[in-house]
Amino acid sequence: MKKSMKKVIPLAVVSTLALGGLIGMQQQETEVQAKDGKNGKAKNVIFMIGDGMGVPYTTALRYMNDTEGVDMPQTAFDPHLVGLQSTYPEDEEENVTDSAAAATAMSAGVKTYNNAIAVDNDKTDVKTVLEQAKENGMSTGIVATSEITHATPASYGAHEEERKSENAIANDYYDELINGEHKIDVMLGGGTDFFERSDRNIAKQFQQDGYSYVKSAEEMKQDKNKQVLGLFAEVGLDKMIDRDDSQPSLADMTTSALDRLEDDEDGFFLMVEGSQIDWAGHDNDVVGAMSEMKDFENAFKEVEEFAKENGETLVIVTADHSTGGFSIGSDGNYNWDAAPIQAAKRTPDFMAKQIESGKDVEAVLNEWIDLELTDAEIKSVQTAAETKDVTKIDNAIEKIFDTRSGTGWTTDGHTGDDVPVYAYGPQKEQFTGMIDNTDQAQRIFELLENRGKIK
Amino acid sequence: MKKSMKKVIPLAVVSTLALGGLIGMQQQETEVQAKDGKNGKAKNVIFMIGDGMGVPYTTALRYMNDTEGVDMPQTAFDPHLVGLQSTYPEDEEENVTDSAAAATAMSAGVKTYNNAIAVDNDKTDVKTVLEQAKENGMSTGIVATSEITHATPASYGAHEEERKSENAIANDYYDELINGEHKIDVMLGGGTDFFERSDRNIAKQFQQDGYSYVKSAEEMKQDKNKQVLGLFAEVGLDKMIDRDDSQPSLADMTTSALDRLEDDEDGFFLMVEGSQIDWAGHDNDVVGAMSEMKDFENAFKEVEEFAKENGETLVIVTADHSTGGFSIGSDGNYNWDAAPIQAAKRTPDFMAKQIESGKDVEAVLNEWIDLELTDAEIKSVQTAAETKDVTKIDNAIEKIFDTRSGTGWTTDGHTGDDVPVYAYGPQKEQFTGMIDNTDQAQRIFELLENRGKIK
Repeated sequence: MKKSMKKVIPLAVVSTLALGGLIGMQQQETEVQAKDGKNGKAKNVIFMIGDGMGVPYTTALRYMNDTEGVDMPQTAFDPHLVGLQSTYPEDEEENVTDSAAAATAMSAGVKTYNNAIAVDNDKTDVKTVLEQAKENGMSTGIVATSEITHATPASYGAHEEERKSENAIANDYYDELINGEHKIDVMLGGGTDFFERSDRNIAKQFQQDGYSYVKSAEEMKQDKNKQVLGLFAEVGLDKMIDRDDSQPSLADMTTSALDRLEDDEDGFFLMVEGSQIDWAGHDNDVVGAMSEMKDFENAFKEVEEFAKENGETLVIVTADHSTGGFSIGSDGNYNWDAAPIQAAKRTPDFMAKQIESGKDVEAVLNEWIDLELTDAEIKSVQTAAETKDVTKIDNAIEKIFDTRSGTGWTTDGHTGDDVPVYAYGPQKEQFTGMIDNTDQAQRIFELLENRGKIK
Repeated sequence: MKKSMKKVIPLAVVSTLALGGLIGMQQQETEVQAKDGKNGKAKNVIFMIGDGMGVPYTTALRYMNDTEGVDMPQTAFDPHLVGLQSTYPEDEEENVTDSAAAATAMSAGVKTYNNAIAVDNDKTDVKTVLEQAKENGMSTGIVATSEITHATPASYGAHEEERKSENAIANDYYDELINGEHKIDVMLGGGTDFFERSDRNIAKQFQQDGYSYVKSAEEMKQDKNKQVLGLFAEVGLDKMIDRDDSQPSLADMTTSALDRLEDDEDGFFLMVEGSQIDWAGHDNDVVGAMSEMKDFENAFKEVEEFAKENGETLVIVTADHSTGGFSIGSDGNYNWDAAPIQAAKRTPDFMAKQIESGKDVEAVLNEWIDLELTDAEIKSVQTAAETKDVTKIDNAIEKIFDTRSGTGWTTDGHTGDDVPVYAYGPQKEQFTGMIDNTDQAQRIFELLENRGKIK
């Protein structure tokens, strides 16, 4: 703590000067000096996690993007591929990770048991890179399409023995102070259920401490406060293709976070999660999975543009694990057809809920799927609809897309295969090759440490 | 052709001098000079293909190697990971590749249709890197655990419109000359069926032209001829754990090839294929797949040692595609248990054949599986045995391993996910990041070209 305090004080002075009105040309000059002065060291770190985004997902995105007769155009991620990451946890029962253990590995550099939120196998709190950044006087943020108290963001800003303790995680965000300050400046995602509670209104508490509290895309856009809590759904946001204008995209939230964080002369740490790639994988829903991959890719494009412009920002993109045993090709089929997936205007989940609520099966399918469905396909959903079981209706609709596209699944859980790592910006070479998920945090800690020293 | 002749002549002189008796210190001196003289350029290229070896396979090998309480030890490949490779073909009907189109992309740098052996979409022959190497006066070799006329090796040394034309492929190996010489100096693998034929005995023809012809591991070991045809099975070799001493391992064949090729002062090109990772994947046989991964890893260890010692050898290791939709974890299971797979002493195929031939089910299972099987497991194989259908027996045995290990499969065909790329040695940096399978050949062509120019 002592060491980091030493770092914080002079930076606070610089920061105060900047906020005190020396914006514009002078600030730009400072930034240019900083660039040169740091000998290619990163000032800001953006860590992006595609939850569940194994190699089949990043490859499938390339097939999905092939819409205009361009032969497998590169994804936004492709030019930045630097390697793969191993993901196994250190759990007595399981050697395939959950999102909590994986995020703790990436946030704190420690292997732990499945369900652990930034605690080790002795259930002792472990410091995260976000917390280190705040100790260093940097601004911090978390952005997710799940509730922001879900396992991945939680493992950056909370400490709990069980990921399901989402109320306690929200409490941690407010209660656990660093140098007397809240540790996360920007929190954007879902989760009013865990903040506006009957026992405690944490949203209000943050507001009392000077945070803005925004609840729609428009409110988020209008607000310019450096510190913000933005919650756009009771739990997770809708999937991208199901979202209406009131909910921001992941790209919108990411841009909003960057706008608030970028002026900190001390730099910032931002974690951005494409949370629901994984949720769609659990559901074996290829339409939802590709919707969320696109949402995540769009967010990365914003980040890439920011980092290119900024010049002092290290960007890492990776996944915590792969989900569903998703495969491009199934049942002996050597063709994976993106067209039926592109023809969906809503997820099977969305359609299933409409059907469950009493709407006509054929009308719903025709409204939201831009395909000539066969009688057998319509009949399969009608048969499922007779059960009034929304899961069965959902599965029947998903099966149409799986069969037409040639998509395979082996599980409603996670799989252990290594996941891709992409990196952009200064010091990206430290993340190349075959790395472990714990290396992510360890290298960011080193980077924050060395960065501090050169000030 | 003219240009390559210019390169060949002076090198041939050097080569003659070396073979003429100036072995020992003088030759070592020449090699050291060559190293320094080439400014870090590769003299030799070894291209290793794990057929079907997608990311789940390379990750699973790490789980398999975790036998001594070491926490996920790195595989031999891991330290050399440099990126991923896209694999899609250019086929009117299919966008998931077969091994022929993928190997043609990697050997000739050209996207083509599934089934094509080094011909493009117009069915015109395309020059391969092996052929270019021979044109440059280098020695060449192909090593495989399939018959050497199978799609992958064939795409380096033959040109046919259909991969199934394996007799024609064997003919190509003999008939297609480069500068009046056979294009492949070392051919090791399976396939007597395609060489010792009633219509034509190609093995004999090669012998008449000065090649050795060896048919067992022992004969291969004893023979020191620079040019050799070694065929150790009628079609493909047995899988590693099913092999007896008469058949060499992939490591044995690779070492034998290197011993014959390494003295060429002009350098060499060697393609090594772990052919049956893919075959086990098609069969959804996790025991066979892991056996073949281990065989391939052992071969890589020999190559790595050679390349470290040699200092002028570029090694690339990759896959042509992934197979089977293999997943580490299935059916909601978050544990992939390598122990039952490690307990197998033969493949399910091997056991199924013994059972089909009339042996007692329980006796066979107990002999070859070092596990306490449940009554239900034994019964499941007994029920399958009653059908006398070897495939059903095989499937019943495979199911025991899949269930116990938590292995999933989605197809008996290939999948489209990107595959890993590993590289070692001079100029390896040209193969890093996200590359396409055609880039492999294109970069090797460039390397052979530039290498020629500096002589």
